[in-house]
Amino acid sequence: MENLVVVLVAARNGLNMGAVARAMSNFGAMDLRVVTPYEKAFREARSAVGAEELLKNAREFETVAEAIADCSLVVGTTAVGNREVQHPLRSLEEAGEKIREGMEKGKVALLFGSEKWGLSNESLSYCHWLVRIPTREEHRSMNLGQAAAICLYELRRTEKKKKDVTQRARRKSTENTEKSSEKRATMETVERITEAWLGALRRSGYVAPRGDKLAEEKLRRMLRRFELEERDAEVLLGMVRKILWKLGEKLRVES
Amino acid sequence: MENLVVVLVAARNGLNMGAVARAMSNFGAMDLRVVTPYEKAFREARSAVGAEELLKNAREFETVAEAIADCSLVVGTTAVGNREVQHPLRSLEEAGEKIREGMEKGKVALLFGSEKWGLSNESLSYCHWLVRIPTREEHRSMNLGQAAAICLYELRRTEKKKKDVTQRARRKSTENTEKSSEKRATMETVERITEAWLGALRRSGYVAPRGDKLAEEKLRRMLRRFELEERDAEVLLGMVRKILWKLGEKLRVES
Repeated sequence: MENLVVVLVAARNGLNMGAVARAMSNFGAMDLRVVTPYEKAFREARSAVGAEELLKNAREFETVAEAIADCSLVVGTTAVGNREVQHPLRSLEEAGEKIREGMEKGKVALLFGSEKWGLSNESLSYCHWLVRIPTREEHRSMNLGQAAAICLYELRRTEKKKKDVTQRARRKSTENTEKSSEKRATMETVERITEAWLGALRRSGYVAPRGDKLAEEKLRRMLRRFELEERDAEVLLGMVRKILWKLGEKLRVES
Repeated sequence: MENLVVVLVAARNGLNMGAVARAMSNFGAMDLRVVTPYEKAFREARSAVGAEELLKNAREFETVAEAIADCSLVVGTTAVGNREVQHPLRSLEEAGEKIREGMEKGKVALLFGSEKWGLSNESLSYCHWLVRIPTREEHRSMNLGQAAAICLYELRRTEKKKKDVTQRARRKSTENTEKSSEKRATMETVERITEAWLGALRRSGYVAPRGDKLAEEKLRRMLRRFELEERDAEVLLGMVRKILWKLGEKLRVES
């Protein structure tokens, strides 16, 4: 579980934050990060039973991008209410397998939104895909602490099974020149690519110079669907930055 | 899930009771029963988000025996701390399968103890076996609302799979003269047998006339290991009652 990162975005309730921390400690996931929490509630949370150490070590961030910078897979949680889903949606059981696969290649972030609104579209745009807990149609929305506990249980549950599969896969991959063991790009790199690309799109006039939030989110989702490997990401970043620089030069010449 | 009964024994915290109710509603288990709850907390719990109806319909009991009287399988939850386990212990994953099998034959009760102490030995003596959530050794004890949510998720998760297996099993059982479709005895009947038997043991001098709690609990566990079918239970009850009556008659003659 050392490669799992739990990220609480805009959490409002101290008891819930404490409950998430306690479940993490129960299942051995020790890396908690919070993005713009309600400060008073976050301070209150620090007394959660048996999770004091974990909460003391929790790191606080201003943005989702910073919180997940060192991760190579970002998974959002959703109750899928009235909001339209722009992402691939996986059942928790299927997600468990994928997340464990991801944890072999780098850090995986599991994002939870605020108790009231869930994850915003902007936060969702940092996710590769979404996971849904199989609650019934008539009452979908779960308590934050309980949702986190269930996700962590599912990861713990599949742990042993996964290990067996991994060993088999490893044997197989050794035969196949270890193609699948290539490291995934971190989100910091992917976000740099996004930023450069957006700049290029703005400068090119493809999107408005300021504030086209929708285009920005679409781009983020697209880049994440690529599931970039580390070496490819570096190359791509270089290419986009070069284009960006060129566009800037052209602008200066024109003006 | 209509054959699942969640029983909270001596719950102390209103927020936890509310959280259990909410998770039940999320996963479609609607039959909540409480045994000697802390009254003030129970009243507070009734405002849990989205579970008002479920909490309003929750039934209150004085004893575990009454709460599970109409059930044919009783499963206790435990963190297995320092207490010695007298019962078969199953992992939650395995328990999920067994509980769903039980739900095809009658009502199944899932017992949760108080936040502080878990289930007492007396409460445990009403259980057929125990289930443990795979928390890590260093931090075993879970929050009540989270533990309940995880158990319900596991039952929901295995639901579809189970259905397929059931259909196959049903076809098979029709071929085999439906031996396995015999109804299990309810706990009310099993408890009547226990009472009569205890009376007989006391009158026979096998146990002390009053208060041998340990012998009583041992007997309860033993009778539950029998997994009595309905028709056998009726016969057994008749036999033990007859013995009990006879012993009483003998006592009267001697005195």
